[in-house]
Amino acid sequence: MNKVKIGLCQLDIQPDKERNVNRALEMIREAAAQGADFAILPEIFYSQYSDAEIRKNCEPAGGPTEQKLSALAKELGIYIIGGSVAEKEGDKIYNTAFMYDREGKQIAKHRKVHMYEVIHPDGRHDREADTIEPGDRVTMADTEFGPVGIAICYDIRFAEFFRIYGLKGAKIIFHPGNFNLTTGPAHWEMSIRMRALDQQLFMASCIGARNLDAPYVNYGHSMVAGPWGDLKAKLGTEEEVCVVEIDLDEIDQIKNRLPITMLRRTDLYDTKYYGK
Amino acid sequence: MNKVKIGLCQLDIQPDKERNVNRALEMIREAAAQGADFAILPEIFYSQYSDAEIRKNCEPAGGPTEQKLSALAKELGIYIIGGSVAEKEGDKIYNTAFMYDREGKQIAKHRKVHMYEVIHPDGRHDREADTIEPGDRVTMADTEFGPVGIAICYDIRFAEFFRIYGLKGAKIIFHPGNFNLTTGPAHWEMSIRMRALDQQLFMASCIGARNLDAPYVNYGHSMVAGPWGDLKAKLGTEEEVCVVEIDLDEIDQIKNRLPITMLRRTDLYDTKYYGK
Repeated sequence: MNKVKIGLCQLDIQPDKERNVNRALEMIREAAAQGADFAILPEIFYSQYSDAEIRKNCEPAGGPTEQKLSALAKELGIYIIGGSVAEKEGDKIYNTAFMYDREGKQIAKHRKVHMYEVIHPDGRHDREADTIEPGDRVTMADTEFGPVGIAICYDIRFAEFFRIYGLKGAKIIFHPGNFNLTTGPAHWEMSIRMRALDQQLFMASCIGARNLDAPYVNYGHSMVAGPWGDLKAKLGTEEEVCVVEIDLDEIDQIKNRLPITMLRRTDLYDTKYYGK
Repeated sequence: MNKVKIGLCQLDIQPDKERNVNRALEMIREAAAQGADFAILPEIFYSQYSDAEIRKNCEPAGGPTEQKLSALAKELGIYIIGGSVAEKEGDKIYNTAFMYDREGKQIAKHRKVHMYEVIHPDGRHDREADTIEPGDRVTMADTEFGPVGIAICYDIRFAEFFRIYGLKGAKIIFHPGNFNLTTGPAHWEMSIRMRALDQQLFMASCIGARNLDAPYVNYGHSMVAGPWGDLKAKLGTEEEVCVVEIDLDEIDQIKNRLPITMLRRTDLYDTKYYGK
């Protein structure tokens, strides 16, 4: 038995940044009160997802929101994956997940690598890269439970990218996201469960609550999936904190039962990683 | 519009090889009568799946079953993916899918690459490789509809293997399989839909009907999934022929709408193929 408790903080992301930050801090307190070892927030948790809102709300690394999350991690003695934030660096903005340990120390920083594009039937072309600068690495962190990874939203679309996390030994991938009402019902659960199964690890995906007034409407349904591709927890669409207990020993049990990751034919193919 | 009709022949695989072959031929005729361009049979369609049965029923390439399938493809003027058969070569047995074109010519031969292993809680270790010799390549075929791929059952467990089919331009992957009553409910549909979505192509997966008296009980539920990861058809558990019409133009439509395969970060990672 190797139990870990993950607190999914499915925040309702509203137009008011200060409200979002304060509510996020409350939700993390609630998760900690329920015994969470890790608390995770949604993607760009303090801002609704539009170019204008992101530019208005972005902060440099180490800014006031980061300071609050770091201080809270230390106060509560838990790990926090601060969803992601809009990280301003010079004239660029990154979609960045900071992770803090139980001492409040920043132990990882993942900049979203994959920028979505949508070409609508009427010809409109939405490019996340018009607002956000892409990151350039797979992000791992060491914890008392072993190595964990961080990926953001659209990163999950790329099986090979997740293979690298698997090869690096991630036991859990923390995944702030915000699929919408088209891709959410079609792909959210299936993608999370399948990446967990493919790599035989746990996925902890945290998305904002469904807010039909937002410029980008989140699907909701934050969830945790296990190495068998099974759901450990699936939230509804409302704002909610849910603390999910998982057993990391399941990873080796499943790898014995169905040793997928050991049966790769690396004589025939392999995924190479050129990053850091 | 670029319509193609795929006939899933969900055979009930019984102990009698001759019955299975004859019934398979009937089902292919039924698919052709419904206008199928392609007909596909399940994995090792003429033999129940045990070491003893496979050794008893195997045939060399070009054997009597192959001759019948080739002749039928020519007679009916359709493509046949002859599920897979137990192909004897010297003292080795391969799990091999032969594909015939409308003239009855063999245009592809896929030997299952990935051999499953299961380690049961009581310590028993099932190794497909105790019976079957693994293949060593990704298998493509050229058709009047464009390139298609063939993979068998457990091959689907490996996202990178399927990436190679995607990179080689497969529009459809034909996939004879036989998941059981444990892995079937947990993984069959999710894996098929996700590989279709990952590579943005069609998956046509054909499995045997559920026969509770068999040494290995098939899950059933042959299916076709599209490039959006959606189900185009899902059969039940009984013996059945189902002809499914798909539109290959969907591939480009979906690739425009959600250009996953174009947004891979091959500067950071890539899947290399060392095979033929």
